[in-house]
Amino acid sequence: MALVEINIVPVGTDSASFSSFIAACYKELEKEKGLKHQLTPTSTIIEGDLEQVLDAVKRMHQVPFSRGAARVITNVTIDERMDKPLSMEDSVQTVMREIH
Amino acid sequence: MALVEINIVPVGTDSASFSSFIAACYKELEKEKGLKHQLTPTSTIIEGDLEQVLDAVKRMHQVPFSRGAARVITNVTIDERMDKPLSMEDSVQTVMREIH
Amino acid sequence: MALVEINIVPVGTDSASFSSFIAACYKELEKEKGLKHQLTPTSTIIEGDLEQVLDAVKRMHQVPFSRGAARVITNVTIDERMDKPLSMEDSVQTVMREIH
Amino acid sequence: MALVEINIVPVGTDSASFSSFIAACYKELEKEKGLKHQLTPTSTIIEGDLEQVLDAVKRMHQVPFSRGAARVITNVTIDERMDKPLSMEDSVQTVMREIH
Repeated sequence: MALVEINIVPVGTDSASFSSFIAACYKELEKEKGLKHQLTPTSTIIEGDLEQVLDAVKRMHQVPFSRGAARVITNVTIDERMDKPLSMEDSVQTVMREIH
Repeated sequence: MALVEINIVPVGTDSASFSSFIAACYKELEKEKGLKHQLTPTSTIIEGDLEQVLDAVKRMHQVPFSRGAARVITNVTIDERMDKPLSMEDSVQTVMREIH
Repeated sequence: MALVEINIVPVGTDSASFSSFIAACYKELEKEKGLKHQLTPTSTIIEGDLEQVLDAVKRMHQVPFSRGAARVITNVTIDERMDKPLSMEDSVQTVMREIH
Repeated sequence: MALVEINIVPVGTDSASFSSFIAACYKELEKEKGLKHQLTPTSTIIEGDLEQVLDAVKRMHQVPFSRGAARVITNVTIDERMDKPLSMEDSVQTVMREIH
């Protein structure tokens, strides 16, 4: 199980806003069953089997092209550990417990 | 006003877990007044004046050294626009409205 | 054709140096035929068909685990455009021409 | 001494090419004395005192705005270690020696 963060930026789209692209990418992600995901103000976070997550990432990266973008820059951060499972929920709670 | 996402990874710490480092970095961020921030499963997001945010980023990057890390790799993504303000709350809500 | 930049960081390795891990990842990449690649001071850059590059990225990400790392954080930036091919050589030369 | 990698993407520029922006950012960097820098196919790498590098990063991030971009997304990776100096030249050579 891995935690993956993805940022997608369409380039040359004539507008400084690209929330409609992000929404379309997120809808593509929602089609994939068995993955947990969360939209944050700057990224989309996906939790699941790495192979399956990367398949979803590839499809998400294609979405802006199908909506007219000529160039897409996608940043993906994979965090995977073998000694114990990583989950979105635990990651935040573990840090929060340390803070308080 | 900018949205900044920061990821801090201490290297050579002998443990695959580093949540205590992230918690200490976050506490350092909380000392800075006038910035909004949010902890996500993979990052910390900061909203505010870019100059002030980058000052906080510099201090957060130093924290793992003071806790014994010999090397720190920090990734920072700055998203800034001039045509209208960026906020954490609006960013998620705008995408959510497009999704539904 | 896409340009992909990859950074791999093994976590909890008890040393601040991880060049031997990066070398092993790079050797794994060299096994993949048909891709161009370049080692920079901070990353590995790969040029080729995106599907094939991402297969190589997945294998590179696994390498530190096979060498004892319990956690691996891999950052991947995909730059792909449809209007014209992207190549490592052209990318640098185009910017260089603009500078001088 | 730190190694810093920077990627700057102007958004909403109505062209999929932005090499002229990258060139202008690089020229801004060249004004800063005492820093080593290298242009790669996907990034600019800077070596030097972290405080000074981050000042240069801030100025580079502003350049696309002055050339008409309404939004700029800048990704910065800081790699700093306390146990020994990091240099662009050594980083590549150390990995190269491990490969061969």
